[in-house]
Amino acid sequence: MCVPGCQEALQAALSRRGFFKGAAAAGFAATVIEPAEAAKKKSAKKAVPAAGTQAPEGQSYFKGVVDLTHTMSPDFPTFFGVPGIELQKQFDFKKDGFNLNWWRIIEHAGTHLDAPIHFSESGDTVEKLAAETRVAPLAVIDVRARATQNPDYLVSRQDLADWEKKHRRLPERCCVAMLSGWADYVGDAAKYTGASGGVFHFPGFGSDAAEWLLKERSAVGLAVDTLSLDNGPSKDFRVHRAWLPTGRWGLENVANLDKVPPSGATLVVGVAKVRNATGGPARLIALT
Amino acid sequence: MCVPGCQEALQAALSRRGFFKGAAAAGFAATVIEPAEAAKKKSAKKAVPAAGTQAPEGQSYFKGVVDLTHTMSPDFPTFFGVPGIELQKQFDFKKDGFNLNWWRIIEHAGTHLDAPIHFSESGDTVEKLAAETRVAPLAVIDVRARATQNPDYLVSRQDLADWEKKHRRLPERCCVAMLSGWADYVGDAAKYTGASGGVFHFPGFGSDAAEWLLKERSAVGLAVDTLSLDNGPSKDFRVHRAWLPTGRWGLENVANLDKVPPSGATLVVGVAKVRNATGGPARLIALT
Repeated sequence: MCVPGCQEALQAALSRRGFFKGAAAAGFAATVIEPAEAAKKKSAKKAVPAAGTQAPEGQSYFKGVVDLTHTMSPDFPTFFGVPGIELQKQFDFKKDGFNLNWWRIIEHAGTHLDAPIHFSESGDTVEKLAAETRVAPLAVIDVRARATQNPDYLVSRQDLADWEKKHRRLPERCCVAMLSGWADYVGDAAKYTGASGGVFHFPGFGSDAAEWLLKERSAVGLAVDTLSLDNGPSKDFRVHRAWLPTGRWGLENVANLDKVPPSGATLVVGVAKVRNATGGPARLIALT
Repeated sequence: MCVPGCQEALQAALSRRGFFKGAAAAGFAATVIEPAEAAKKKSAKKAVPAAGTQAPEGQSYFKGVVDLTHTMSPDFPTFFGVPGIELQKQFDFKKDGFNLNWWRIIEHAGTHLDAPIHFSESGDTVEKLAAETRVAPLAVIDVRARATQNPDYLVSRQDLADWEKKHRRLPERCCVAMLSGWADYVGDAAKYTGASGGVFHFPGFGSDAAEWLLKERSAVGLAVDTLSLDNGPSKDFRVHRAWLPTGRWGLENVANLDKVPPSGATLVVGVAKVRNATGGPARLIALT
């Protein structure tokens, strides 16, 4: 309970501008916690101001920034077994005064988004996805132990129930992400795809879990740290076919889900905004 | 000044989880304000939960989500006068069960990021930009009145001083954005580029402003709602050459800067993470 005068102070603190007046008054400053990648970078780059110097009047109303994006390159494992990107240098600094490449890129390679149209005849293309669905609470379902035992593991309705029991009801309009541990294998295409006799082996979402989310919760997106929302051996892509045509999106090849809390982070989906695209490369930022 | 007990309540409110306990206790709930684009979308898409239903225990510690990104297409005006993207359909839903395109794309077309290597011999490529510099306070310098008078207008040191006088000192590690009004012309390439006799005419940053920011403030990025950080007639790209080699980034063809407050928004730069890229398409999200 608030003592007299406190509610006003809280109200001021909870408004954006007042937040920092409040923070300054209370004598603590917002800081940016750096992910491992950024921390490494910091020592090497003196010209750019170091993190953690955010002024009390700054806008860091979150504590950490975690990049959930793998670096895309021609080496990155793809579903189709061909490089997902090719770079062609068109201008060179020494000759032209600046550097510039063209890319040839598959819409669905690397860390990327699946738009509704990817598995439907008339669903939304990527540029039509509403802005408010691409900033979403992130719920991470950790199935690493089970996926180690069974590389074809399917996230189940029970896994979602277990998460809710441990944390809370899945937040409204959230993204539900599978943490299978497969991101650790991304440098080894054979292990990441699990290809054997023409069949892939990696974990994905079960259709029972996807159907339950569609009926009982308001999730806007699914995310996986593997090549596909459906698991490796899937022939019918049941989760893609159930999920995407409803206007929801999917994220594949997500990185660093082990670096964010299972509950409480906010995901910002920075997908390229291309007219008529069925998906595209996405920069995924988690604010924690 | 806080009355006894209030500081603890503030502290709880200002921690991420405590924020919402505090918000609930104080009797107000976080909501997501929709940008125009999303609002239009909402009525058409019933399958996805509507915005504004965020539970009090959700993560919306901001009020609004504004998309600062133009939709990229072959029609989008480019610096080089050729289409910045081509889509090639590789799989078709009716025939193959899913839709998928390849793209051929210029790294520096549409709403995009310039990495340090774009104008340097050995600067950072895009995948090396530290995560904490891509989530930044956004300061919007409104020069629309001056740009209407002079399409080659250069944002000056004085414009920055005027902003600071009206608002506050530029936040640490911010992105400084020029709002010239040119985003309104993006559907008309002749007007957007201002091409006349082989010379472009559109506003940009002045080198006095850029140099002052480098020396006196800690800005990490510059952004413009035109084709280039330097203005249209520039032959020497002085701002590019002064700014980028220091390890900082730039954003070009930014949309909707008139939809965010001049001070107080947080910019999340969702640039595609491609190895050895000199820039790339970026989804820019402002949290307000």
